[in-house]
Amino acid sequence: MKFGGTSVADLERIRRVARLVGREVEAGHQVAVVVSAMAGKTNELVAWTDGAGAAGQGLPTSDDEYDVVVASGEQVTAGLLAMTLRNMGVRARSWLGWQIPIIADDAHGRSRIEDIPPEKLGGAIDSGEVAVVAGFQGVTRDGRLATLGRGGSDTSAVAVAAALNAERCDIYTDVDGVYTTDPRIEAKAKKLAKVSYEEMLEMASLGAKVLQTRSVELAMAYHVPVRVLSSFVEPGKAAADGGESAGTIVCDEEEIVEKRIVSGVAYSRDEAKISLFGLPDHPGVSSEIFGALADANVNVDMIVQSHSRRADTANMEFTVGKRDAARAMEIVRQVQQKIGFQGATVDEDVAKVSVIGVGMRSHAGVAKTMFGALAEKGVNIQVISTSEIKISVLIDAAYTELAVRALHAAYGLDKL
Amino acid sequence: MKFGGTSVADLERIRRVARLVGREVEAGHQVAVVVSAMAGKTNELVAWTDGAGAAGQGLPTSDDEYDVVVASGEQVTAGLLAMTLRNMGVRARSWLGWQIPIIADDAHGRSRIEDIPPEKLGGAIDSGEVAVVAGFQGVTRDGRLATLGRGGSDTSAVAVAAALNAERCDIYTDVDGVYTTDPRIEAKAKKLAKVSYEEMLEMASLGAKVLQTRSVELAMAYHVPVRVLSSFVEPGKAAADGGESAGTIVCDEEEIVEKRIVSGVAYSRDEAKISLFGLPDHPGVSSEIFGALADANVNVDMIVQSHSRRADTANMEFTVGKRDAARAMEIVRQVQQKIGFQGATVDEDVAKVSVIGVGMRSHAGVAKTMFGALAEKGVNIQVISTSEIKISVLIDAAYTELAVRALHAAYGLDKL
Repeated sequence: MKFGGTSVADLERIRRVARLVGREVEAGHQVAVVVSAMAGKTNELVAWTDGAGAAGQGLPTSDDEYDVVVASGEQVTAGLLAMTLRNMGVRARSWLGWQIPIIADDAHGRSRIEDIPPEKLGGAIDSGEVAVVAGFQGVTRDGRLATLGRGGSDTSAVAVAAALNAERCDIYTDVDGVYTTDPRIEAKAKKLAKVSYEEMLEMASLGAKVLQTRSVELAMAYHVPVRVLSSFVEPGKAAADGGESAGTIVCDEEEIVEKRIVSGVAYSRDEAKISLFGLPDHPGVSSEIFGALADANVNVDMIVQSHSRRADTANMEFTVGKRDAARAMEIVRQVQQKIGFQGATVDEDVAKVSVIGVGMRSHAGVAKTMFGALAEKGVNIQVISTSEIKISVLIDAAYTELAVRALHAAYGLDKL
Repeated sequence: MKFGGTSVADLERIRRVARLVGREVEAGHQVAVVVSAMAGKTNELVAWTDGAGAAGQGLPTSDDEYDVVVASGEQVTAGLLAMTLRNMGVRARSWLGWQIPIIADDAHGRSRIEDIPPEKLGGAIDSGEVAVVAGFQGVTRDGRLATLGRGGSDTSAVAVAAALNAERCDIYTDVDGVYTTDPRIEAKAKKLAKVSYEEMLEMASLGAKVLQTRSVELAMAYHVPVRVLSSFVEPGKAAADGGESAGTIVCDEEEIVEKRIVSGVAYSRDEAKISLFGLPDHPGVSSEIFGALADANVNVDMIVQSHSRRADTANMEFTVGKRDAARAMEIVRQVQQKIGFQGATVDEDVAKVSVIGVGMRSHAGVAKTMFGALAEKGVNIQVISTSEIKISVLIDAAYTELAVRALHAAYGLDKL
């Protein structure tokens, strides 16, 4: 069981979490609980580290010390939940990353879990104790604290579940499952009973902030079924049906009997489009541009290139994260000085809308349905990109909601 | 160097501390810094643990989990100070109790340090790095966090200094040294350049809250010279004279050349007096009363017994901490039921005033001077107790300031 920051935001909510844990214990399950910092605490700690860094004079960053400060938030929650469980008569103890240990690499602030020896934690659980694990944190092989980056507690939970060979990893959050699309945009959005790891990965990377991408990768690698459900559901209700019907199960594709061609419609407004005009039409131009962007650590997402028929030149469009747009334009100007092209513009007023579904692999016509539905609503497609289980289009941001609703209907997702 | 909560209360003060540390490094010293939690943070954490415990149903307390929660405060400060030092160009890293390790017993919440293997910490310092140590915390032999109780960071600092065989342990606090008496009561109070461990112990236990008693015991056992000084002094000023003249040095008696008969006048309003009348005058009565109090964990301080001439009975007076007064009276009533005596009263309106000095050992007449000075001002003495280097009297609380000033003058402390 994993509980995020809003689920443990204060003592009252921690008691609620303890009751949910207590129900699982009563139902005869062995339980490890992974907790985040109380909502707001990580921000407070990060702000302090920013302040401590503000005295800086261009010296190397202190990511290892950042981790020392920030990891304290989860420690507090783990201790408080263990106390609360005991006070409810449930045997429990807290486990910090270094105590288990959750061994992580030394990429401080965005560390990755390398290993979790299951002996200590498993031994405690086998003795009948609930293990309350501080999420988001690990320890490097040389004994320093390391944190996993924002949302890292999801990854902690899946990794602990994998190490313990757990039957399931339940991620309690502030939504009650994974939906066919954002219910704030399309009221007819339906909750999915099951979704495959691959689909969830695409959804996560497309901005559906239900699970951290890394946690889904890990679940896929170790075949850990992950259930996403709300921590604000009544404990009694969740327990009544064994919790099986609550939330959404993220699992292997093979375990999903009724396969859908399209499982969901996602969107993201986090990208900006950069357009280059009148590029010299010879080999090496693309590698010049994208090489320079890669050197500057700017991730490029969608790319399309077209030839101008009149002149012997090419045009190019690509998208980068909005945060990187200004830096990307600087680099583009530098490349322009070097190789010479007509001009470049940036457009932040774009949205990426995607349809996702493992059924696409074996089913033609998905793209046709998508383009048809968008054309019918007068939505102009600027850029297209595809993967095996996803088709994404870049459109004018003003049309985002319209496009999402049109696609949701076109694939019959409102009739699941 | 040890800095308490008010000295690291916010980022601005942490930068101030970093500058003080930087000066010591520039002066060519190797430095370990022990820090407390930012002022207020420990209270916040303790309040949460109280809340988590409030759900209780009479189950065993969770002192081990209390320690998990509360120890996080020092962790935050240690990380922030290490970051700040680095940003000032000073090589530094934080050390948590378990990383050193500071091995402590499992009396959670009031644990005592058992051992500090000096290898890791000393190695880091020898490499030219400032070691920033989280105070107040240790780790038990089975790998759980343990905290040392309120004010425990003083003890951490002295223990680290002892383990490293440090030249000196500088305790930075919000006062600039140890005074002959409380300057808020007697403006003529003088700062002592040196004071012996024994005297400091008596002062600490008598309510002069400069150092935690345990830290002084430890300093005495390992002969660690402790300097008490203000963290609010200008860094330049402290460095100008090598810091030698700043603050008060607490050290072995032998190192104090100019011995004074009396070094200070201390007072405490934390005690209550309990009086018993008409006790049966036969052996075993005292042990009945004080045995019952000891069983209930009530500490008794001053005791005086007197015989009534007319009846064959005795009277008895003793003092307990004000917090324990109600409980002590309950116990006294129970004993009264059992052995039978006339009555008992409690008086919370008392103060204990003490004169302290190692010179008393070899010098008669100290008591005479004390009683004479008090009599001259019309201060009635209710109870007297003495140790080798201390004489304490219990008086009406209303006379506290008058008594302190009279004694301060009587021993010439205002003329040091």
